[in-house]
Amino acid sequence: MKFGIVARRDKEEALKLAYRVYDFLKVSDHDVYVDVETYEHFPHFEEADLKPLEEMDVDVIVAIGGDGTILRIEHKVKNNIPILGINMGTLGFLAEVDPSETFFALNKVIEGDYYIDERIKLRVYLNGESNIPDALNEVAILTGIPGKIVHLKYYVDKSLAEEIRADGLIISTPTGSTGYALSAGGPFLDPRIDGVVIAPLAPIALNARPMVVPADSTIDVAVLTKGRDVILTVDGQFYTYIHPEVEISIKKSPRKTKFVRFSKGIYPRYTLKIKKKF
Amino acid sequence: MKFGIVARRDKEEALKLAYRVYDFLKVSDHDVYVDVETYEHFPHFEEADLKPLEEMDVDVIVAIGGDGTILRIEHKVKNNIPILGINMGTLGFLAEVDPSETFFALNKVIEGDYYIDERIKLRVYLNGESNIPDALNEVAILTGIPGKIVHLKYYVDKSLAEEIRADGLIISTPTGSTGYALSAGGPFLDPRIDGVVIAPLAPIALNARPMVVPADSTIDVAVLTKGRDVILTVDGQFYTYIHPEVEISIKKSPRKTKFVRFSKGIYPRYTLKIKKKF
Amino acid sequence: MKFGIVARRDKEEALKLAYRVYDFLKVSDHDVYVDVETYEHFPHFEEADLKPLEEMDVDVIVAIGGDGTILRIEHKVKNNIPILGINMGTLGFLAEVDPSETFFALNKVIEGDYYIDERIKLRVYLNGESNIPDALNEVAILTGIPGKIVHLKYYVDKSLAEEIRADGLIISTPTGSTGYALSAGGPFLDPRIDGVVIAPLAPIALNARPMVVPADSTIDVAVLTKGRDVILTVDGQFYTYIHPEVEISIKKSPRKTKFVRFSKGIYPRYTLKIKKKF
Amino acid sequence: MKFGIVARRDKEEALKLAYRVYDFLKVSDHDVYVDVETYEHFPHFEEADLKPLEEMDVDVIVAIGGDGTILRIEHKVKNNIPILGINMGTLGFLAEVDPSETFFALNKVIEGDYYIDERIKLRVYLNGESNIPDALNEVAILTGIPGKIVHLKYYVDKSLAEEIRADGLIISTPTGSTGYALSAGGPFLDPRIDGVVIAPLAPIALNARPMVVPADSTIDVAVLTKGRDVILTVDGQFYTYIHPEVEISIKKSPRKTKFVRFSKGIYPRYTLKIKKKF
Repeated sequence: MKFGIVARRDKEEALKLAYRVYDFLKVSDHDVYVDVETYEHFPHFEEADLKPLEEMDVDVIVAIGGDGTILRIEHKVKNNIPILGINMGTLGFLAEVDPSETFFALNKVIEGDYYIDERIKLRVYLNGESNIPDALNEVAILTGIPGKIVHLKYYVDKSLAEEIRADGLIISTPTGSTGYALSAGGPFLDPRIDGVVIAPLAPIALNARPMVVPADSTIDVAVLTKGRDVILTVDGQFYTYIHPEVEISIKKSPRKTKFVRFSKGIYPRYTLKIKKKF
Repeated sequence: MKFGIVARRDKEEALKLAYRVYDFLKVSDHDVYVDVETYEHFPHFEEADLKPLEEMDVDVIVAIGGDGTILRIEHKVKNNIPILGINMGTLGFLAEVDPSETFFALNKVIEGDYYIDERIKLRVYLNGESNIPDALNEVAILTGIPGKIVHLKYYVDKSLAEEIRADGLIISTPTGSTGYALSAGGPFLDPRIDGVVIAPLAPIALNARPMVVPADSTIDVAVLTKGRDVILTVDGQFYTYIHPEVEISIKKSPRKTKFVRFSKGIYPRYTLKIKKKF
Repeated sequence: MKFGIVARRDKEEALKLAYRVYDFLKVSDHDVYVDVETYEHFPHFEEADLKPLEEMDVDVIVAIGGDGTILRIEHKVKNNIPILGINMGTLGFLAEVDPSETFFALNKVIEGDYYIDERIKLRVYLNGESNIPDALNEVAILTGIPGKIVHLKYYVDKSLAEEIRADGLIISTPTGSTGYALSAGGPFLDPRIDGVVIAPLAPIALNARPMVVPADSTIDVAVLTKGRDVILTVDGQFYTYIHPEVEISIKKSPRKTKFVRFSKGIYPRYTLKIKKKF
Repeated sequence: MKFGIVARRDKEEALKLAYRVYDFLKVSDHDVYVDVETYEHFPHFEEADLKPLEEMDVDVIVAIGGDGTILRIEHKVKNNIPILGINMGTLGFLAEVDPSETFFALNKVIEGDYYIDERIKLRVYLNGESNIPDALNEVAILTGIPGKIVHLKYYVDKSLAEEIRADGLIISTPTGSTGYALSAGGPFLDPRIDGVVIAPLAPIALNARPMVVPADSTIDVAVLTKGRDVILTVDGQFYTYIHPEVEISIKKSPRKTKFVRFSKGIYPRYTLKIKKKF
């Protein structure tokens, strides 16, 4: 099998575990590629095995870190490569296994004893064009000036759903429903729901409420506050300023994120993690 | 065509409109049956045309009233008969047309110029048996003593989803998501979402949150507060006391509610109505 | 000094500790009275030292148990006797010391090395008369039929503050602001605030919000849902059914609850306890 | 009497009414000063009567506009000059009279038939120094990068009250409790409450809740997210970037805002306005 390895760059423990995974897979005669940025923070891998994330084309990527590491991979790789997440983050909603289970999990992958958990992503179109990474968690359209509300209208399948004055608007996948959308008052969406949460962020009107719409809906957002740009963020990682005249449209992406999983259980894992948030 | 007529019993205006609808349909040579309870409050219909709701077997039921009238029909009729709702209630999330459009709408129905909007319902099983009307809006499991919390665990597909101490728990269809579940902090669920909202009611733990799970899930609720019964309500209309040892299970019903609609639009109708709640 | 002893009746550990406190105080030559109900569950105290709570007139009552034990004392004693709470409950917002610190705390009390934390209480007037125990936590006016909303108006100092359709209304002291009112969406009120929280419970209107009004306000609640009684509860302990024509008025009580405290700190004790709620 | 006149600069109607007020007061032989910025947008006042807000020293300032106009006055005038607000804004929580009542109200002021409604303000100290306008509504400490949470601790009277990861933190007066703090989930604070709302904005932890503390408390906020500045805003009008090492301290200001009022009623005015928010 061909493996890719990516580690959280700011945590030595993660980098060291990445090296042990690399060593184990090499010894077991698998092809292994290491993310260039990981190498830059831990220059012990063989240079011949380096590969930028954008060019990685492997069977499985082993992601050692937190949700941030997985989002970084997702924003860069070109194909829907299955990710095995080893949790070295604080909450780790996305990662599957704990560091102590790393080699047990790798063996299961090698033996083919796993299944793929596919998650939808959202794609943003600005004036009909898409040049922005897909969102695994959420797209947020935020006031460009913190503390100054933005006036927005949003449409579901071309019909006006709501008009708000708020700090912003969050459009979240089921995967992202445990993140920013939850802080904004949205529900937890079971990942099997083919839906999207639309949640206003600190709206002035107290009756503006989160809603859940089909994932196949087209969600259009019109910015009515003229004279200043809004900020569009994807997964809290990608940022861009957007002129209020630009047409913002959000749809389900043709791409999916694939996670390597060893159990199909959703509960109580997610609901327990929501409680541990701090 | 065969029509049934049911009106809100406490509003003379609704009863009078029911009679005009009856008269119009008779004159147009359709078979018309009138709900016995409607007749009791407005004894001007021909006795030969009376029928208890439980025995009504027609092509379309014309429901003149609010959401309560529609729920009353749904709890009693045996088949999935399409309902044309004429709104004489305060909010009227379920009804399709205003009283002024009644005859225009009837003509469209006669001409076949309408479509059917199918809505899922929930069925409650107590120790595996179902003797309770299906819920079009929601099933609520509530403390038997107002103000005294009840301790519950709920399971989604046999896995523990959450454990709460609360005034109760609300399990709502998309149709019911604008009702009691919304008051408990749940989201608005687009009726096209094949999902169910589970929302705790005034939970002690501040991190117990509403969730949306697939409509095909089995939701089991275990009552951990022994020594006193809980109350189970369906659509705020049917009530029963339940012993804490009874196994409560909630699933999508094999039955659906069918509404006669003339437009497929969901927005902004629902979101506007949410704002008008008082 | 004269001491009273009251223990949680359903926990042997609490009853045994009560006996050790009793023994210690007798040996130290203090006058000690034991609550009759405590004795009934642990009949080892001398009968000469028994006293019903209603007749207890001592310098300090030692309350061994949770918030429920303290509320039971407060609803029965006639005077504002300082309470030393020893926490044998689950959360224990009201109790001051842990069981392991019991004798250390008693010595401090005997030496006079403590201060009194006074808390306001609320008094309910029904048609101008008060026959109900004062509330240390909250007064709740709840629908008599769980799941059926009640229609209420409430007035602050004779001016209409709000009209709601809801499961009920909670009027809470700062002490109670970590309880039922918090579950209904109310804020935490620092006990130094001379105010009262008014929080609607699962209101239909999404813009009905909790408010904080001066503790010296008169809060009048009018029940607009005729035809069935509402339930009025005090501290989740006292219950009564109230006819919708009855005028309900809530004011600060002339009585206060006095707690024996050894430190003036409010933070982080309360905020940490809120987080531990489950 | 000496009057000052200030109008909303972007609304011709307000500027014209300002001129009529000016004319009426001149004719009635009162001293009248006009704000320089108002003049710049409506250059019909006599130049001899112009005065920058910073130098205005009059008995009453007539503010024609919305809450923004009143906040602009409050941030600039040096003394606690009573303000008569004439509402030409959208919501107008602060203004007392409608435009049609302008001259009726002015006559009452001239006759001395009014009372003064004093409101507390908050003062911000950065490393012990205060160079920022006092807040009539709220102080907000916000993430410098929209969508990226900031990690904060806040202390009440030097004790840790809470630690949050959130979009920000809002510290609000009773006057501001109908504004940004309400959008963040805070309660409505009756203006007679001598308290301050502390409300986290979209916190990650679901059990981080709004609290109300005495207005005389010292509230210290420590920024734990190093490496990037936070934004501090006052009343949504004044903005500054703050280095994470700076000690932020918030206290009741020695200054107050004085409003000219003709009735002492608080309800239902405020609660109705909250409902009209959109």
